[in-house]
Amino acid sequence: MFRYRPISFTQVEIRDAFWSERQRVNHERSLPKQYDLCSRTGRFDALRLRWRPGSDLPKPHIFWDSDTAKWLEAACYACQLRPDAALRQKIDEVAALFVAAQQPDGYLNSHFTVVRPEERWTNLRDDHELYCAGHFIEAAVARHILTGGGVLLNAARRLADLIADRFGTAPGQMPGYCGHEEIELALVRLYRATGERRYLDLASYFVDQRGQSPAFFAEEEKLRGGLATARSNLASQQAHQPVRDQREVVGHAVRAMYLYCGMTDLADLTEDDTLLQACRHLWRNLTRCKLYITGGIGSTWENEAFTSNYDLPNERAYCETCASVALVFWSHRMLQDAGDGDCAAVMERALYNGALSGMSLDGEKFFYQNPLASLGKHHRQEWFECACCPSNLSRLLGTLGSHLASTGPDSLLLHLYIGGKFAFALDNGVRGRISLITDLPWSGCTRLVLALNSSSAPEPSGTVLWRLLLRIPDWSRAFRISVNGKEPVWSTERGYACIERVWCDGDTVEITMELPILRLVSDPRVVSNAGQTALQRGPFVYCIEDADFEAGALSATLPHDAELAARHISDLLGGVTVLEGLVSVAKAHATDPADALYRPVCERVMRSIPFRAIPYFAWDNRQPGAMRVWIPIA
Amino acid sequence: MFRYRPISFTQVEIRDAFWSERQRVNHERSLPKQYDLCSRTGRFDALRLRWRPGSDLPKPHIFWDSDTAKWLEAACYACQLRPDAALRQKIDEVAALFVAAQQPDGYLNSHFTVVRPEERWTNLRDDHELYCAGHFIEAAVARHILTGGGVLLNAARRLADLIADRFGTAPGQMPGYCGHEEIELALVRLYRATGERRYLDLASYFVDQRGQSPAFFAEEEKLRGGLATARSNLASQQAHQPVRDQREVVGHAVRAMYLYCGMTDLADLTEDDTLLQACRHLWRNLTRCKLYITGGIGSTWENEAFTSNYDLPNERAYCETCASVALVFWSHRMLQDAGDGDCAAVMERALYNGALSGMSLDGEKFFYQNPLASLGKHHRQEWFECACCPSNLSRLLGTLGSHLASTGPDSLLLHLYIGGKFAFALDNGVRGRISLITDLPWSGCTRLVLALNSSSAPEPSGTVLWRLLLRIPDWSRAFRISVNGKEPVWSTERGYACIERVWCDGDTVEITMELPILRLVSDPRVVSNAGQTALQRGPFVYCIEDADFEAGALSATLPHDAELAARHISDLLGGVTVLEGLVSVAKAHATDPADALYRPVCERVMRSIPFRAIPYFAWDNRQPGAMRVWIPIA
Repeated sequence: MFRYRPISFTQVEIRDAFWSERQRVNHERSLPKQYDLCSRTGRFDALRLRWRPGSDLPKPHIFWDSDTAKWLEAACYACQLRPDAALRQKIDEVAALFVAAQQPDGYLNSHFTVVRPEERWTNLRDDHELYCAGHFIEAAVARHILTGGGVLLNAARRLADLIADRFGTAPGQMPGYCGHEEIELALVRLYRATGERRYLDLASYFVDQRGQSPAFFAEEEKLRGGLATARSNLASQQAHQPVRDQREVVGHAVRAMYLYCGMTDLADLTEDDTLLQACRHLWRNLTRCKLYITGGIGSTWENEAFTSNYDLPNERAYCETCASVALVFWSHRMLQDAGDGDCAAVMERALYNGALSGMSLDGEKFFYQNPLASLGKHHRQEWFECACCPSNLSRLLGTLGSHLASTGPDSLLLHLYIGGKFAFALDNGVRGRISLITDLPWSGCTRLVLALNSSSAPEPSGTVLWRLLLRIPDWSRAFRISVNGKEPVWSTERGYACIERVWCDGDTVEITMELPILRLVSDPRVVSNAGQTALQRGPFVYCIEDADFEAGALSATLPHDAELAARHISDLLGGVTVLEGLVSVAKAHATDPADALYRPVCERVMRSIPFRAIPYFAWDNRQPGAMRVWIPIA
Repeated sequence: MFRYRPISFTQVEIRDAFWSERQRVNHERSLPKQYDLCSRTGRFDALRLRWRPGSDLPKPHIFWDSDTAKWLEAACYACQLRPDAALRQKIDEVAALFVAAQQPDGYLNSHFTVVRPEERWTNLRDDHELYCAGHFIEAAVARHILTGGGVLLNAARRLADLIADRFGTAPGQMPGYCGHEEIELALVRLYRATGERRYLDLASYFVDQRGQSPAFFAEEEKLRGGLATARSNLASQQAHQPVRDQREVVGHAVRAMYLYCGMTDLADLTEDDTLLQACRHLWRNLTRCKLYITGGIGSTWENEAFTSNYDLPNERAYCETCASVALVFWSHRMLQDAGDGDCAAVMERALYNGALSGMSLDGEKFFYQNPLASLGKHHRQEWFECACCPSNLSRLLGTLGSHLASTGPDSLLLHLYIGGKFAFALDNGVRGRISLITDLPWSGCTRLVLALNSSSAPEPSGTVLWRLLLRIPDWSRAFRISVNGKEPVWSTERGYACIERVWCDGDTVEITMELPILRLVSDPRVVSNAGQTALQRGPFVYCIEDADFEAGALSATLPHDAELAARHISDLLGGVTVLEGLVSVAKAHATDPADALYRPVCERVMRSIPFRAIPYFAWDNRQPGAMRVWIPIA
């Protein structure tokens, strides 16, 4: 069992200059936009099961139901944070569509019900059936959290029961698993919502069966009459070896993250140490060898996948929004094991950068890919044929509160400095609320006020020794703490400042951290970043884009000794702190052929130009243009 | 008709400190090695047509015959340069295999004859039949050059006649063309060897038909019972639009080069200006937007293809050896149009770097891919399943002499400063020989002596005004010429120094050029090279590799003010000039976590380390290790 568990977003009220606006935009703009697009594209109609061959209606696609389910799930979270009758009505309508679309045996998938009824469960590798089921289960759990009980959770149970009946290694069952992981973590959530152990067992089955011999995807391909050429695909779907033996993060990035989420959940709930060790190996490989500085993952569009260690091209980076969202999910799970600040740092990196960049400031346009450099042709879009990313961001923004803090037997851990209030309860009976006011992410003061609820404690809470652990971000060079105005005794524990004391109602903790402008360089094995530096301040990784450079961002360089200063501009990009300075750059030599790909370095004529970097998440919200995160040092 | 034509390698005797050794190694090591591997792998046996279903013999692969044909072609060139009875016997044996394998109707392909006789010409897109035919025709022409006439050329004609009968737009013909171009340029060579216009017409047909609607590859796929999903493949094979409309270099790099060779040949021989204009557009796009500094081309292993403009990743560079070899071929053809030094420069860049790197110094190991950076796992191999590259290098080394010089009506152009002798004949009747002694490529003195043959001229050659054009390489900063010890009057013409005079027998021209160490930078749109510099001296692009760096080549940087000096080391890598110096590098900060992917730039502790760069072509000839061409500047 992991040492910590997160405080649920249902217990957290976020009131934060930065994130409240992101949640508002999600609620008021993104979710209605996604609803509208699901509706216009036929995704809702698909669940009415009216499509027939030759019909004029749009033909339900294999993963349309997952888009609908993810919208439903995200809408439930938004309603949970802020009741909204109109949204609630849409939630009920969409939930009713799912319930009505469920078949008598519990099966639920619009594509296979109307388009290929005879082909149910015949291509688990490619057809996303269990993936869609997983997202439906997650939606049902979300609505259960919102409303309690209900017909939708029951529908999810019936679907899960059907799956439990169909899949397994007993005679008459299919020894299969899904090509796109998701069902594993969804079943864990269903277990948590219902307490039914069989859903946890089914999740364990799916995780354990993956990668066993003979390879299921090859076997099912033979049954379909195809050549069993699936060998090369097995790693794409993390099915090349039993998951406990996997040491390198491979294949489709989103699938990998969803699998690892399920593995981590199971390692926690079943106290499975070999599974946990596999997760730790994979974590280490991911974060030491395959992670972009933005928290983006997946180096190639080819199967939206990981490539080899240290292969992190910038312009060609795939970095699917869903992959960073899913990395937040996985980091969050890994974090609960030992409260390791490294996990929180990766979670924060992905959240504030590679995931958040997926949505425009107005909440209505989305990136599918989040490259770290662009020549100017990469822009957010309203929607995609494969529209997985928008609702994934909405799910994340809705449940953002769950990522702030965790509790353990005698400890409260604060991972992210986001303003708001939350209730907590430690295992030792201490209960209370914390309110948190912060200037972060733009500047570094945070004030926590504790309100302890002594009535519910076994002994007056004012007499119990417990530990408050405050994360020390690696981007803060000076980290000072005071408790009620005085410097407390504190120790460092896995990247957290740990203050153990008898906390009293009304205790006030102040944290002051400097937010220097960091210049980061890469491990030299990251060939793509050689000779370049990235800027970071606080949790934000910065980039430069054409909008701020008369001669174009791509020709800008950042001399080693250039002085940059942070300045907050409230009317720029919704209010961001930019990094500015005059920098000296080499002027192009007049005789250089303008279109030569390669040219000799000539006598260096230097000139000063104004340099400005903006937070990466906010790029492509002005005029189209080139962008880069890694800047030549010159 | 192009203004110039190359002097054939049959007229050139290379005696060059650098290239003679490469030709010797090719003759004595590479060709025997390739013969042995063709033999051991069953490629020769395939032509004996003994394979049957269930047979123990290796099953002939669809493009095995091309490997055999290319070996045969390359062996003929080697024998032409230096008669070799043992090699000649092997040539005769292999030629006899082809002749015996030809079917009564002229068809010649071991795979389709024994493995899938009923599937001839059913999958032109993927099955390489016309590609193999093209290489057989080239081999037959090479043997014809070596021996004159002969049964092999006759076999090639019979095959070409069968193809001419089968393919075309007349009723009963297939309106097809090959997915892997090669037949086009081969038919032009057959036309040149035989004077038969119908082979030129057939080449024109294949070039013109490409990209016409309806798309042939989609149509043939339907005939095979497949879904016509070839759309995305069309650009892969340069078949997405008629070739005259193509403006961007796309798809499989080798196929593109072979097509452009054929197009350029036809533009020349048929005086087709629209074809020439298309070639010029494609040339411009390739050389300004898609060419590696090594003369490598093809940015991705995915279909061995070009990607978008300026996308030139270093470690992931594909840069197939065959593609650089084929770029030499195409540059050489484009060069004959107007004698543009830009074409010669690209030809030289590919020849001395991205092509030559494909072969180990001992001639027995080969690169298929020639990346510009490696973490240490990329090494030359003896052979490949798809063994196209080794024999392509051998073909190039055999015909190297053809690339030295061209003649026109009243001009002799010298493109490459390679030592040797050659005969020439201008259209105005001037005939003679040039002997050329040079210190290049390692240092910059070249001496030419003219021997004019006045007997064959319409008037005594000593009275005719004609032009000698000497290429002024862009890597030479100071270029001085003397004729018989005095500075002549000369003008610059498209990158050549043009001396027009009444040349006399025994005239001696001396060229002196400085070979500075050039530091090159990229167009800023090449994101992969930002903040990095490449070194070049003379025609050689340099790289650094682990063997020369105690702390590894990847951590080396090259400060802007580092002083480097060239030093020739005769016992290193067969004798190369290295670039050396002491350079100042930042010492890693002691507290940096050793395995962090990203770390802040700390106070810079500088130290000096010995730096050494070696010519790129010679890398991976010592112990395995990391390598990079583009070096961080800081």
